[in-house]
Amino acid sequence: MCQATKYLVKTKTLNDLGEAGIIQLIQGKGPARLPSHLKKGIGDDCAVLQTTGDRVLLVTTDTLIEGIHFTVELLPPEALGWKALAVSISDIASMGGTPHTAFLSVGMKPETEVSFIETFMAGFQALAGRTDIVLAGGDTVESPSSAVITVTLLGDCLPEHVVYRSGAVVGDDVWVTGPLGNAAAGLFLLLNKKASELSGYETIVLAHQKPTPRLNTGKALGKSGLAHAMIDISDGIAKDLGHICEQSGIGALLKTASIPMSEEIQRLGSEVEKSPLEWALHGGEDYELLFTASPAHEEKIMSLTAEVSGSPATKIGTIIPEDGIWLETDKGKRPLQPGGYVHF
Amino acid sequence: MCQATKYLVKTKTLNDLGEAGIIQLIQGKGPARLPSHLKKGIGDDCAVLQTTGDRVLLVTTDTLIEGIHFTVELLPPEALGWKALAVSISDIASMGGTPHTAFLSVGMKPETEVSFIETFMAGFQALAGRTDIVLAGGDTVESPSSAVITVTLLGDCLPEHVVYRSGAVVGDDVWVTGPLGNAAAGLFLLLNKKASELSGYETIVLAHQKPTPRLNTGKALGKSGLAHAMIDISDGIAKDLGHICEQSGIGALLKTASIPMSEEIQRLGSEVEKSPLEWALHGGEDYELLFTASPAHEEKIMSLTAEVSGSPATKIGTIIPEDGIWLETDKGKRPLQPGGYVHF
Repeated sequence: MCQATKYLVKTKTLNDLGEAGIIQLIQGKGPARLPSHLKKGIGDDCAVLQTTGDRVLLVTTDTLIEGIHFTVELLPPEALGWKALAVSISDIASMGGTPHTAFLSVGMKPETEVSFIETFMAGFQALAGRTDIVLAGGDTVESPSSAVITVTLLGDCLPEHVVYRSGAVVGDDVWVTGPLGNAAAGLFLLLNKKASELSGYETIVLAHQKPTPRLNTGKALGKSGLAHAMIDISDGIAKDLGHICEQSGIGALLKTASIPMSEEIQRLGSEVEKSPLEWALHGGEDYELLFTASPAHEEKIMSLTAEVSGSPATKIGTIIPEDGIWLETDKGKRPLQPGGYVHF
Repeated sequence: MCQATKYLVKTKTLNDLGEAGIIQLIQGKGPARLPSHLKKGIGDDCAVLQTTGDRVLLVTTDTLIEGIHFTVELLPPEALGWKALAVSISDIASMGGTPHTAFLSVGMKPETEVSFIETFMAGFQALAGRTDIVLAGGDTVESPSSAVITVTLLGDCLPEHVVYRSGAVVGDDVWVTGPLGNAAAGLFLLLNKKASELSGYETIVLAHQKPTPRLNTGKALGKSGLAHAMIDISDGIAKDLGHICEQSGIGALLKTASIPMSEEIQRLGSEVEKSPLEWALHGGEDYELLFTASPAHEEKIMSLTAEVSGSPATKIGTIIPEDGIWLETDKGKRPLQPGGYVHF
């Protein structure tokens, strides 16, 4: 390459590459064959390790960075501690597992007030206590600017109860637990309304700040053998269902009218002239579960999910052979573009 | 409290609390009793979990933050990738374990060049390949300013081969593998000399940039049952031996003349009029192992360590009942103040 041409070539950055490209790059060619102890590596909510004994080990790691994933204004320290653990619990839940041991790495500025860490830990330990998780280690480091939180969570599961992203088959129903879009609408509220205007919207603010991962539902579904594929909704249904489609080699057709939405986000949508469906499809951070199952088991799924969580899961669509995710609306069928949270 | 007094009280920050205080705060009161699966929680190089089967699981997490733990000028991306994994391998080695599965969380600015991640991963995978570690997952996120790397490493060990910090007994010899101070002297060189002036000092620059954790020695010592207590030297011998003393409830007396130092740091010390002993005692980042053992096993330890690593470990002192770490010099006995790397 001549010098002139060389300087015309723009250096490729992570921004150009996108998240999928970066993961590809980090994954590299990978080992030709996974080592025998690793049943699943990169590419699901958790890695699955066959260590010794009859249960497999599930491992997930999530990093939250101030200014990217949270700001102190929108997420007070107690909620941050809760949420930092909740997102990892949700990953274990989406595989059908039971979390047991957490590792917490915290990077903070030296001038951070001690009370910040105290309330952060109170939030973390409140959820840990409720879910029988023990904090077993971690790292505390100085961070020059943004606070950085990394949680690694370990759990276990009988190997036959683990639910992967890759098991969806054509004809399966697509299900979600709980209403969708609450967390995104809660974030919208926090960004656009004063504290005094949040009355009547407490549920959706809480959905953003202190999500409750669907641990019992995930475990029950794993144990039942009813779910063919499962994922948690962290980046928005469009993107997360996309992962199931890619890994199962299928597509999905969703019925707009079936997407479960809370009364609050519909009311808020009217009030601020925003589409609640956009929050539900693309919002992300709901930490509900999305799974597929045979239509023959519809009633079993309704009763099982109602029994464990108090309200039944909602059937929102069907797995189809055609690639991509399609939306059946009253105006016909249109492709659903992935519009979830893009990390890069 | 009256308002006037209130405003005179300085808000307590993490800086005031120090690292030990922060760990105390994060640890909290902790569970009254560790849950049955957790043999060791916070307070050693790794957590030790009795999951299922006959081997225990070792877990360690380390975070490196740009501007605090490294700069790109002093640690090129390939060395950064290597070192990010090396520090965690060293933690597993210091417990006598065998690492097998890594999780890598990377936070980078969007404008980071792709080639940076490529060479970073090349360094990481070079060490992973050499030590039979598989990368099984992680997280990739955007970081607004500093790059942030968190590695969680899993390993295993037979429970009877795990070496804790807490097993040192009065009368034990204190041993270290390899020379001390190379990494600190290497960092001094990189900070104070031009690249053209590093000739003849390649070993110590490499000790800072691409340390080789003492994995085989750690495993062999664990398996032999000879080491009573063990730790890796990450923060400087004064601080790390201090952890063994605290957790074993003993003290130590070191002989200055016995501290092993390379010819390079002695030569560099003369050249720049710095004390090589200061680098050796307080420098940190050597990732050598420090362990204690019965004097009856001196010869066995010499031959075992020589057999596994090519050079025997060095006996540098004795475990004493008196608290603290003491230095026996040609001018008499003086207390060794912890002067290792302080995280806050």
